[in-house]
Amino acid sequence: MAKELKDLTKRSDNYSQWYNELVIKADLAEQSAVRGCMVIKPYGYAIWEKMQHELDRMFKETGHQNAYFPLLIPKSFLSREADHVEGFAKECAVVTHYRLKNSPDGNGVVVDPAARLEEELIIRPTSETIIWNTYRNWIHSYRDLPILINQWANVFRWEMRTRMFLRTAEFLWQEGHTAHATEQEAWDEARRMLDVYADFAENYMAVPVIKGVKSANERFAGALETFTIEAMMQDGKALQSGTSHFLGQNFAKAFDVTYVNKDNTPGYVWATSWGVSTRLMGALIMTHSDDNGLVLPPHLAPIQVVIVPIYKNDGQHDVISATVEPIVKELRTLGISVKYDDSDNKRPGFKFADYEVKGIPVRLAIGARDIENGTVEVMRRDTLEKHTAPLSNIATHIKNLLEEIQANIFKKALDRRTEMTRTVESYDEFKVEIEKGGFILAHWDGTPETEEKIKEDTKATIRCIPLEGDTTPGVCMVTGKPSARRVVFARNY
Amino acid sequence: MAKELKDLTKRSDNYSQWYNELVIKADLAEQSAVRGCMVIKPYGYAIWEKMQHELDRMFKETGHQNAYFPLLIPKSFLSREADHVEGFAKECAVVTHYRLKNSPDGNGVVVDPAARLEEELIIRPTSETIIWNTYRNWIHSYRDLPILINQWANVFRWEMRTRMFLRTAEFLWQEGHTAHATEQEAWDEARRMLDVYADFAENYMAVPVIKGVKSANERFAGALETFTIEAMMQDGKALQSGTSHFLGQNFAKAFDVTYVNKDNTPGYVWATSWGVSTRLMGALIMTHSDDNGLVLPPHLAPIQVVIVPIYKNDGQHDVISATVEPIVKELRTLGISVKYDDSDNKRPGFKFADYEVKGIPVRLAIGARDIENGTVEVMRRDTLEKHTAPLSNIATHIKNLLEEIQANIFKKALDRRTEMTRTVESYDEFKVEIEKGGFILAHWDGTPETEEKIKEDTKATIRCIPLEGDTTPGVCMVTGKPSARRVVFARNY
Repeated sequence: MAKELKDLTKRSDNYSQWYNELVIKADLAEQSAVRGCMVIKPYGYAIWEKMQHELDRMFKETGHQNAYFPLLIPKSFLSREADHVEGFAKECAVVTHYRLKNSPDGNGVVVDPAARLEEELIIRPTSETIIWNTYRNWIHSYRDLPILINQWANVFRWEMRTRMFLRTAEFLWQEGHTAHATEQEAWDEARRMLDVYADFAENYMAVPVIKGVKSANERFAGALETFTIEAMMQDGKALQSGTSHFLGQNFAKAFDVTYVNKDNTPGYVWATSWGVSTRLMGALIMTHSDDNGLVLPPHLAPIQVVIVPIYKNDGQHDVISATVEPIVKELRTLGISVKYDDSDNKRPGFKFADYEVKGIPVRLAIGARDIENGTVEVMRRDTLEKHTAPLSNIATHIKNLLEEIQANIFKKALDRRTEMTRTVESYDEFKVEIEKGGFILAHWDGTPETEEKIKEDTKATIRCIPLEGDTTPGVCMVTGKPSARRVVFARNY
Repeated sequence: MAKELKDLTKRSDNYSQWYNELVIKADLAEQSAVRGCMVIKPYGYAIWEKMQHELDRMFKETGHQNAYFPLLIPKSFLSREADHVEGFAKECAVVTHYRLKNSPDGNGVVVDPAARLEEELIIRPTSETIIWNTYRNWIHSYRDLPILINQWANVFRWEMRTRMFLRTAEFLWQEGHTAHATEQEAWDEARRMLDVYADFAENYMAVPVIKGVKSANERFAGALETFTIEAMMQDGKALQSGTSHFLGQNFAKAFDVTYVNKDNTPGYVWATSWGVSTRLMGALIMTHSDDNGLVLPPHLAPIQVVIVPIYKNDGQHDVISATVEPIVKELRTLGISVKYDDSDNKRPGFKFADYEVKGIPVRLAIGARDIENGTVEVMRRDTLEKHTAPLSNIATHIKNLLEEIQANIFKKALDRRTEMTRTVESYDEFKVEIEKGGFILAHWDGTPETEEKIKEDTKATIRCIPLEGDTTPGVCMVTGKPSARRVVFARNY
């Protein structure tokens, strides 16, 4: 099995296959019996829980509360907002009946035709409609605003081509849905949550992101503006990692949500929504991992340190365990999660391979000779480098090392992105460069038609119009028309 | 609005209406646009989050890990286990199509008949089938066992008569699903989780429970034995608050899950499942609350202490705020959640009523004269008693008071249960006593037929055969046949 673990396709041979194998070998997830739906295994779920925990804290610190709205949405709700229905009706799971009955032929159960619903129900692909239908009764006056609510939930979109974590029919996510008295306040909220997402991506996931605005083609169905954070994977493809939408008054109008302001004048309520999903797991895996398996940022690793004893007999085992015990305690006091793996049904070599493929940031190996020398062997997963460290003061050493690893993998990803981001002047140059992968900064005339043509020609889309960076105007590489600034093109997941 | 808050139906007038109104007035939940599905509002969800947090910790401390399995289950899976399909097929939501399209008449969207699924999918009513179908690939040898997995999820059962939290079509829950090499180990696991549930109910919810086993009539569909904790509500009705099932090898056989043991002999795997749901919110509300609103146990209250300043001008406000600030800090250091409500758009009287109806365990009111005297007015929600306490040492005083409240509401519920539990000898006596509500301890011959007759005659069911208490044998009150011990009868939610 240790050999089997190592038997991972190389990224340079087939990046896509490497990813699929890694998800399985690191025990993160697997396909289920239901097409397009995955099973998130305990180790994968533990990483997702760490993500949830940090995000939930950040949402609460910015004044949001959690709530829960129904899984099923009446079909008619979907058609209330014209763009929304176009975006979501084509890929939804439809509940038509509420009962099964024994099959007349005696084999299993069949749908009971007498139990047909008057109005079909849709499994939520996103919850704007049911939530805004609810908000109508919550909002009467400016005193009822803002409403700052988040929901942790499962959603369902009938995707044709699925990949574990990156695109699955059912996925887990959070969706924030806020209501505001003024346009400015809603705009600021959408913008604030983009910053929260970027902060999380960079400081917890160690994934550098570009903050920007989506072009009209890539905007959320029903939004006036979609903010996005875009990450670059190791193969140079972009991965949209979180979006925050300024919805204007579209959903308030569709669901008739009005309020009376301080001057006693009525008006429609302003809205935002924002979400990140288990897709972040895909971003995490694809940004840092290598040909030996998963590499996890210490800030999100369920186990940050594993200690493996190397012993030949019970006596040595006892001595090592006695030495390790206070170290484990001290690490835990420092808030570091540590596992002492002295299970005797696996050889150390197997354990090393297993923890390597699972991406545990730091591994300590300690044998009888280490005890004599007062040292321990330390391996850091990001570089696979080993060094010997004194046992005295080991906890502080590890604490610092974890922060160093966190910073190092972020820098590595940032350097890669910098290296794989190029500026092009002509469309011919663009067509050559886009084949090499990475982000291309180019001028664009701002029209959906030009973006569509570029997509047809090259499979590249505008990932975002960045909020920061070079804002020099120019001319569109395709049409020669004026361009306000360079935008980010890439092929994407 | 303060008046409106107070305008709650009295328990003695109409207990059922009191409950329904309280759920709304305390801002816990409301009906949604989807029949039988509720919206859990932020305050209700915050209590559920506290419950989840403690339960999740207890599950992890007993060696369990979280994972996530698909929402949708292939219809055929349900029929694999004969009892299971009987129990769940009649009330499930069936997904038959995967796409909507624009209506030919131009009005909204309709189900696309071309997008019919080959095999219908069921929204999980519980996940034994999909999970055991997954476990088949995870389990080969005794080395792969035990599997100790829990899932936090939403489930769906098409209930005809719903009540918020107590019985809703969609509800939130956790479901543990464990796999074991031996019968004894599975049995011990089912038993252990019952103890975890009882510990949680009594020490966090402050709800006394009777631990027992279900009669065959009330057993989970597919289980060989169902353990339960049963609580008594204030109206004397029972509420099943958590169940833990010993499933034997039923699901292993249905999904062909075998393993090879140490002696290299193959066998079917042993199983348990166990769950508690948002129904616990109903138990919590109905056990402690009074005619003034919600009463929350301090161990689960999202806000344990609220401080309301009483001032006539900004100067007084400043002085009070300066006095309160270090107290808030000290309380938080002690792990107590506290809210200082100096919002100026509501009068103190309104705030008092609002926090009373929301069940905040301790309320402090502090005015200019209190500052002069170095005191504060303390009100405890459980007894509504007020007392004056010195500001010096107030944090410790409150910490002790919170524990006193926790113990007091548990004792109150326990005393009520003791008072409303009676022993009867004859069926005539039973019929009289059951009308008065409460738990009736009576002898029963152990047959489903007798239990069925009692249910038809009196609407009472056997809540459980207790694991503890009087085990003296006797004769069945209905048939005169031998009875191993008295069992608990009650009408129930």
